[in-house]
Order: sequence, then structure tokens, then C-alpha cells
Amino acid sequence: MSDYRAPIKDMRFVMDEIAGFNELSSLPGFEEATPDLADAILEEAAKFACEVIGPLNRIGDQQGCQLTPAGVTTPPGWKEAYAQYREAGWNGITLPAEFGGQGLPNTLGIAAKEMLCSANMSFSLGPLLTTGAVEALLTCASEELKAVFLDKMVSGEWTGTMNLTEPHAGSDLALIRSRAEPQADGSYKVFGQKIFITYGDHDMTENIVHLVLARLPDAPAGVKGISMFLVPKFMVNGDGSLGARNDAYCVSLEHKLGIHASPTCVMAYGDNGGAVGYLLGEPNRGLEYMFIMMNEARLGVGLQGVAIGERAYQQALGYARERKQGRDALTGEALVTIDKHPDIRRMLMLMKSRVEAARALTYYTSGLLDRAHHLADAEARKQALWLAEFMIPIVKGGGTEMGIEVTSLGIQIYGGMGFIEETGAAQHWRDSRITTIYEGTTGIQANDLLFRKLMRDQGATAKIVFGEVYATVKALTASGKPELAAIAQKLGVALKMWTDATEWLAANAKTGLGGVLTAAVPYLNLAVVVCNGWMMAKAALAAVAHLDKGEGDLPFYRAKLASARFYADQMLPQAIACAETVKAGDAAIAGLGSELFDA
Amino acid sequence: MSDYRAPIKDMRFVMDEIAGFNELSSLPGFEEATPDLADAILEEAAKFACEVIGPLNRIGDQQGCQLTPAGVTTPPGWKEAYAQYREAGWNGITLPAEFGGQGLPNTLGIAAKEMLCSANMSFSLGPLLTTGAVEALLTCASEELKAVFLDKMVSGEWTGTMNLTEPHAGSDLALIRSRAEPQADGSYKVFGQKIFITYGDHDMTENIVHLVLARLPDAPAGVKGISMFLVPKFMVNGDGSLGARNDAYCVSLEHKLGIHASPTCVMAYGDNGGAVGYLLGEPNRGLEYMFIMMNEARLGVGLQGVAIGERAYQQALGYARERKQGRDALTGEALVTIDKHPDIRRMLMLMKSRVEAARALTYYTSGLLDRAHHLADAEARKQALWLAEFMIPIVKGGGTEMGIEVTSLGIQIYGGMGFIEETGAAQHWRDSRITTIYEGTTGIQANDLLFRKLMRDQGATAKIVFGEVYATVKALTASGKPELAAIAQKLGVALKMWTDATEWLAANAKTGLGGVLTAAVPYLNLAVVVCNGWMMAKAALAAVAHLDKGEGDLPFYRAKLASARFYADQMLPQAIACAETVKAGDAAIAGLGSELFDA
Repeated sequence: MSDYRAPIKDMRFVMDEIAGFNELSSLPGFEEATPDLADAILEEAAKFACEVIGPLNRIGDQQGCQLTPAGVTTPPGWKEAYAQYREAGWNGITLPAEFGGQGLPNTLGIAAKEMLCSANMSFSLGPLLTTGAVEALLTCASEELKAVFLDKMVSGEWTGTMNLTEPHAGSDLALIRSRAEPQADGSYKVFGQKIFITYGDHDMTENIVHLVLARLPDAPAGVKGISMFLVPKFMVNGDGSLGARNDAYCVSLEHKLGIHASPTCVMAYGDNGGAVGYLLGEPNRGLEYMFIMMNEARLGVGLQGVAIGERAYQQALGYARERKQGRDALTGEALVTIDKHPDIRRMLMLMKSRVEAARALTYYTSGLLDRAHHLADAEARKQALWLAEFMIPIVKGGGTEMGIEVTSLGIQIYGGMGFIEETGAAQHWRDSRITTIYEGTTGIQANDLLFRKLMRDQGATAKIVFGEVYATVKALTASGKPELAAIAQKLGVALKMWTDATEWLAANAKTGLGGVLTAAVPYLNLAVVVCNGWMMAKAALAAVAHLDKGEGDLPFYRAKLASARFYADQMLPQAIACAETVKAGDAAIAGLGSELFDA
Repeated sequence: MSDYRAPIKDMRFVMDEIAGFNELSSLPGFEEATPDLADAILEEAAKFACEVIGPLNRIGDQQGCQLTPAGVTTPPGWKEAYAQYREAGWNGITLPAEFGGQGLPNTLGIAAKEMLCSANMSFSLGPLLTTGAVEALLTCASEELKAVFLDKMVSGEWTGTMNLTEPHAGSDLALIRSRAEPQADGSYKVFGQKIFITYGDHDMTENIVHLVLARLPDAPAGVKGISMFLVPKFMVNGDGSLGARNDAYCVSLEHKLGIHASPTCVMAYGDNGGAVGYLLGEPNRGLEYMFIMMNEARLGVGLQGVAIGERAYQQALGYARERKQGRDALTGEALVTIDKHPDIRRMLMLMKSRVEAARALTYYTSGLLDRAHHLADAEARKQALWLAEFMIPIVKGGGTEMGIEVTSLGIQIYGGMGFIEETGAAQHWRDSRITTIYEGTTGIQANDLLFRKLMRDQGATAKIVFGEVYATVKALTASGKPELAAIAQKLGVALKMWTDATEWLAANAKTGLGGVLTAAVPYLNLAVVVCNGWMMAKAALAAVAHLDKGEGDLPFYRAKLASARFYADQMLPQAIACAETVKAGDAAIAGLGSELFDA
């Protein structure tokens, strides 16, 4: 199994040329985010990812976690690696300085996070969930709760969890039944069972802070009656020391297809008299708070597709450069390494260009989120936020579906060896499979794009994006270079498909809802292809600018240009197929009932 | 985990309306293959698949096989199930009556084989390999060897294996190093290590007949120096009783991503002095013999995609009809089963229509093979054979890629539960992943289609197919029905894309080989989409004929029509994208070397 190598150069290219990282240090609060600091952080993060947690990826998959009478134990080496993670200060790099973090831009933090996830996706999920919980506390916790919990969560001394799902309440959170009873001292007793709780229990930290959605006694039915509670694993004394064990236990671990080392817990709250909890924010606003941090959580899951795709690509490339089979069809050379065979090259390029495109879109969106929080002008902040929110379902839906397809190509390049678990190629594919499901399925991303992001401003944000894509097409054409013109032609067609499909949706939203809902995922796929192709076109423009000046690593920029054109040739034409499918709506099945499926 | 239900009605529809099963009983040798016999066989096969081997699928996945000092043991229940399989005579239904088989058409046998594979893919691999070995013996074994081995292999009393791959020789069989030394008595001693040997050892039968590719001492280098040997696990005495243990052992079992209950063996031949083997046919023609049976083996693997897709579809449908989440977006009804949600309907229909399309093409090709062997006229036999051979890579490449995508949709419909192994949805996805690799990867199917099947007659066979697709387009249009016209329009465009891409390939085959090789898989995908869409169009015509007459199960025919149109809407537009990609060739990367991948 080949080792992970952090693609720092690729990351910096995207940060600098596409996500505008270098402009961020001029924004209030980001003064320290200089290129030099970025270099230092990326190098250290690479070292940590490659040397400390990367080597634990395989043993994590093989041994997984165990539920013992004393709680959940992580695989050998996990605890020590987490201690190193925490001590090196990685947990707080993008979290507020006020609570001990470094307050650096997401556009820098995301590269470090990508490395963690590439090296060991199961490991990276603990910090991802903790960060989500921190965001929630920042949003809605009282000053007292913040004072007790935030420093320790920002440092990673304690981890956090998100407890939404119940056996009968998955995508439909309106069905949540967990309940909270107010106590005389202002606290609550929480009762209920939660499932799919990532890192719901483990042995890496002394305490765990559970955020739990539950209903108050007088709460209205449905999603407007859900409140959020903080339930610590151990109570915290006034002096910050740990007190009694709270009534919150992992009662079962799931046996999963992938991410074996990430404990997926069934959590029982209140089976022994009630779990002590504290209301976060106002009653009945739990779901609203959850959605505030959902943007960054979904961006983080989209990033997982990039990270695991990158890992699979590196591994497949390493194998293809070693494995000798067959004659070179073009030169006639006997017994060459398989990376010389055109179809293996096609698959490697497809892996590479799709990962690069999704990385670019993810980092670009991260840059928008940084601007949404730090730009001086309120109107500019709002526009950046709306653009970021428009992109989030595209990043999440597109990145995760790409991750599954790219890791599958990784197996294919290995041939028969890819099906053997010792090779490690299969693990990436298994691990990736959860990403299109958690934090909202691809179907939910599609509905979010259509009914929230596209329609909330009658397409105004979409039109800004269309305009920017069009500007890129014009810039490509204006260059007068045939390789850029080739990309421009395909991106132009793809953009036209996207605007056509959008018009079709707008025209049918009122009178043909069934068709619009059926078209949601194909429409999302269309947006993914165009936005990814747009990012690759920007990369091509940047690469050509360097090539024209003859400055920097010219083979690197030539490879970037080739990768962009490859994406245009292989992926952008799919926009035509997606648009056709969108516009077909549900004509084939409208009005037909369940008998459709029985035949 | 829901049970498997054999889709007999769907199978009969395809057999009768598309594969022309009913005409077969008029051909010499097929006189007994009447519709009544087909009914009886399909019902019995369904019973066996659903009641005997289906229930063993999960335990097979969980426990797998074990290598013990006495050899490989199969999971609990396996041995008994195999005994039932053999005793009921399933092994020989399409094998020659001369050796104890039933000699029935493949067009009937394929439905029974689909059921076996849907119920338990790991179980079905043993019989698949045995059938392949039988075909090889029929092709090239001496009368003496046939007399000793064939009856017992046809009945399933002994199983067979195919030994091609060596650690350094996978897709490139020219590298085979195993060797055979002639002995004074006319036998050979075989030496070498073979890997990925399916059912290389097991405890279900008393003997195993290994077919092994190896080199004679004076053999030329490369693929023209490979001979085929029969190496029994136990020697066979003159009276047919078993003699000494031969020097052929399983020395290791692979730990695989899927098909856990199918033992994938590392086989050592001759480690203790030499394994006794018998030359099959003439020296140095081993690979040629292997390719004779490759057609049916590849058809069988394409069928696996259909079978496992069908199983995943049934299971996802069962779950979607039980699981309640969310409000019906169209009627407003609260808390409905998820099969009411448009995106779940879309996924279920995509699963269903893609499985139906691939089944139709597989059975249709099976019908061509039956005609290729049984038509009275030699010229007609040859044309049927060439058409079948043209379709084989399309069936294999398309069916297997479809199987992976459809089983993935099955997981998606389950949501979070799909990622939990107990559900069983994940097993289908894991099991399916080998199918695009063994019996020739998708890349090899694509090269076979281009360089053997398309070019060997300068496109003459392809033109016959184009003509038949066009005739279907005309028939759809001539009907004057809007629902058929909608299909005709999309199939017509897709066909145009296919013919355009074929012309591009022909024009570039000599001067732009790199581009043509890069375009091979996209071209295969294009052929898959058009041929599958064509089959669905034929299904639509057949369904409408019944609907017009008002005869038979009308809801069934309405569902068939809807499924065909759904395929046209959702899948046929991909032909446009594929053709664009084919015609882009390798323009993006031509002339660039290995530095392309380092960036």
C-alpha cells in the first residue's frame, strides 16, 4: 500500500489562483494569514498527516472500534495519535482566538483538513464533529456554557458530537421523539435513543460533549418543536474538574461498510433516570441552529470526496507506475508499466482532473465563506454568503459522488488486485460510500439547491454565477489560444445547458412540481459539471498566464492546462445529457402509481 | 433483509418478445424447448434459487470460506445446497444430452442462471466455472478424456476451474511461466503458481478438474506458446474411482471486498514433484481454446450485473415501501412511505429500467448464440455468431458497470441504513465490484469491441446492427403514438451519435491510434447506451401491441412502456456526451509524458 503524499503544490495553486487566499490577509481579523504562515502550516500539517495518522488508516479499517463494558475503545495507536493532534494545536486552527483557536481563514484550514482526511478519513471525523459542535455553541450557547465548554472543545481536549437521527427519524427530523424535562435548577433531563452518532463514545479524551435534539414538554409538533441540548458525558464541576458520569451511554456499535475506525454509536440518553442537559439558545429553535452550521459541515463532507479521491489517485498512480503488463500500443515497446496504456492514462487523468476540479470548487467556496464573515462591507458580506450557500449543495453533492466514482476507478486500475483487501484500494471505495448519505443525501442537496438556494431570490444568485461563468468563457476566447478556445467552446455549451434547464425549472415549478422534483438530482449533476468545468477553466487561464510569462514550474502549469482540457473533453459534455434529462421531467411516469414497480 | 423473488414474468417477456425463444423449438436439437417446458423449468429454478441458496447468501458473506490443513471448507449449508443443486440436475440444463445434459437453449438456461446469481452470486460462480471447463473439454479434449471427465462435470458431480492468471501475468497472458514437462506415458508434469482461481478448492465435491495454461519445453515465447492441460485434484482410476491425490493444492485464500463465499485460491502446481496433467487439444493452442469459451463466460459475467442489479432493486423497493419519512410533496399527505417521494421514484425507476434493458440485451445475445449453433443455414449461423460476438463486449462491459451503479443506488435508497452491513444492501455493491474486472476488464471489452468486433469486417456487422436499430426507430415513428415517438426521437439521436463516433474511429484508426485507444471505453459506453435503449424500444413496441389488443396483463404492459420511456429520457441522452468524448480523442494529453501525473 503506497503512502499518502500531501499535494501541497496543488493546494497552493488552488488557494492562490482560484480561492484568492492572498487577498484575505488584508481583511480584518486575518492579518496574520500571510503566504509565509500558510507555507509553514501546510508543511507541518503534511508532516502530521503523513507520518502520524496516515500509517494508522489500515489498522483502523481492519480492527475497527470495540464496545467494552467501560465504553468504546479505538484501534491501537489511535489514542496516542489524537494526543499528538491535540497537543500540536491542529484542532483550533480556524476556530476563534477568543477561545484558544488560531482564527485562521477556512481557505487555509481546508487544506490542512483535506490532508487529515486523505491520510485517515476515520480519524478526521472526530475533529470534524467537534468543530461542528463548537460552531453550534458559538451560535447559541449562553456565556456560562461557553465558559465551561468552549476552550476545551477548541483545543480538542474534549470532543463533540451531533445527535439528530433516531431510528424512525432520518432525513425527516420532524419525527424526533427524544424529550427533555425541565428541572428546578434550570437544567433538563433528556430521554431518548439516537442512532448513527459519530464518535458517540471513544477513549481518546476524558470527556465528550453531546449536542442532542429533543422536544420540550409543551413543544409544537414537527420541526418547529425541536430544541437543542448540551449533554456532557461527565458532569463538570465548578472548578472545571470532572464530576459524576452522566446518563448518556453508547449501547451498541454499528457494523459498517466503511470508516470502521470511526465509532458509529447507538446512544441511550436517560435510561437510568435521565441525562442532565442544558438548553442551548431558545426553546424550539434547535433545527435552525443546526442549519446554521450545516453549511460548513456539508462543505466538510464535500471535501471528504476530494480527500479520498486524491488518496485513491495517488495509490493507483503508484501501482500503475510499477505494474508491468503488455506492450506499448504506440511505440511497440515490450512489457511496459501499465501507466503507458492509453486506457489507464485515461482513467488516471479522469481521477486527477475530477479531484482537481472538486478541490478547486470546494476551496473557492471556502474563500467565499471567509469573505462572508470578514469583508468590511455588509452588502458584500451578504452576497458572498449567498454565493457560498448556493455553492454548498453543489460542493457536497458533486464532491461526494465524485469521490465514489474516483475511488472505483482506483480499484479498476489495480485490476484483480483491487478486489483484494490487502491492497488498500477497496477501503477508499468503501469509506467513500457514506459521504453521499450523511449530512443530507444527494437528493436532499438537490432539493436544497432548487427550493432554497435557487428559488429563494428568484434566481438572482444563480444569475450572478452564470455571469461569472460567462465571463470566464469570454476570457478563454479572448486569449486567442486554441487550447483555451477548445475549453471555451465546451464550457459555453455547458453553460447554455445550465441556463436552459434553469428556465425550464422556473417555468414548471408551479404547475409541474412532480417533474421538477424528479429533475432535481439531474439538475444538481448539471450544476456540478458546469461549476467544476468553470473552476478548471479558471485553472487553465492561470496556468497559461504563468506559461506565457515563462515563470515558475512550467511542467506543472502545462499539466494543469492539460488537466483542464481533459475535464472539458471528458466531463463537460455530460451537461448536455443532464439538461435533456432535466427537461424530460417525469413525463415517463407521471400519473402512474405503485404498480409501476411491481412488473 | 428482504427475500429474493424470481421475476419470471419479466424474464418470459424478454425471452418471448425480444430474444425470440418461441421460435427456437423449430430448430434442430431444440424440439423439446416448448413454452410449457420453459414454464416448468423457470418455476422449479425459482423455487430452488429462492428457497435453497438465497437463504445462504448472507451467511456466506459473513463467514466466507476457510483454508484448513484438509483443504478449503465452504460456509455452513453450502455443501448440502450444492448436493441439492446437483441432484436436481440444474448443472446440465444447457449442456449436451450426449454427456448427460438436457441440451436446452441458452435463451432458457440464462433465466435459470440469472436466478441462481440473484439469489447467491458466490454460489453461482462454481457452476459458472464448471460450465466453462465443460465447454473447453467439448472443444478440444480427446475422446478418452471426454469419456473419463465429461459426464461427471456435466452432472456437477465434479466441478471445474480455469487457471490463467499468475502473479505477474494478469491481463497480459503472454507472460505466463507455468510449465509442463512431457512424461513417457504421454501425460505431463505441470509446475507453477496460479492466482485468483475461483473455487480452486472446496469441500462440495469429491474431485475438481483444473484446466491450466502452461508452456511446453519447446514452446515459442508469448501467447503462441501456451498450451492447455487438464489437471485433476484426484487421479481417476480405470474404473472411474478416485485414485491418488494429485500435486495441486490451494496454498492461500484471498481476503476480498466481496463474494466472500466464493473461494479465490492461490494454487500451487507441482511443488511436490509435479502435478499430473493431460494436454488438451494441440500444443500451443491453449489461448485459442480459452477464447472459444470466452464469449459465453463474458455473457455470463454480464448476466451477473443484471442478476445482482435485480436483487438490489427488489430489496430497495421493499425497503422504500416500508420506510416512512416525510410528507408527500404532491398530495401533502403526512408521513408517507418513501417510495412516494419523487427522487426515490426516480432512483427505483432508474434501477428497474437499467436492469430490464441489460437483461433484454443479454437474453437477446443469448438467443443469437443459440441460433449461431442451431440454425439450419450455415451463412445464417455465421451471421448470428458474428452478431453475438459483436454484442458480447457490450453485454459484458455494460451489464457489469450497470450492476455496480444500480447496487449503489440501492444503498442510496436505504440512506444511512444502507451503510450498515446487516441490511444486506452493501453486500450487493461489494459483490458486484469484481464483475468489471474478471473475464477481461471493461477496458479490455472496449478494445475487443473496437479492434476485434468492429474492425475485423470493416464495420459490416456494426452496419447490420445500425440498420436494425434504425428499423426500430422507424417502427416507433410509424406507430403514430406520442409516447413511442418520444422514444423514437431520443433513440434516433443516440443512433446518429453512435454512427458518427464510429466514422470518427474509422477515420482516425490509422493515423491517430492514441486517440482511438483513449476513446475506446467512451465508445463502448456509447454502444451500451444505444443497444440498451434499442432493447427498451423493442420492449415498448411489444408492450404497445398488447395494450392495443387489450390482451394480457395490461398494468404490466403499461409499466413496461413507462420503463422504456424512462430509459429513453434518463439514459439515452448520455449517447450525446459519449460521442463528444470519443471525438475529443486524446487531444488534451497527446504528446505529454509521465510529468502529467506528478503535478
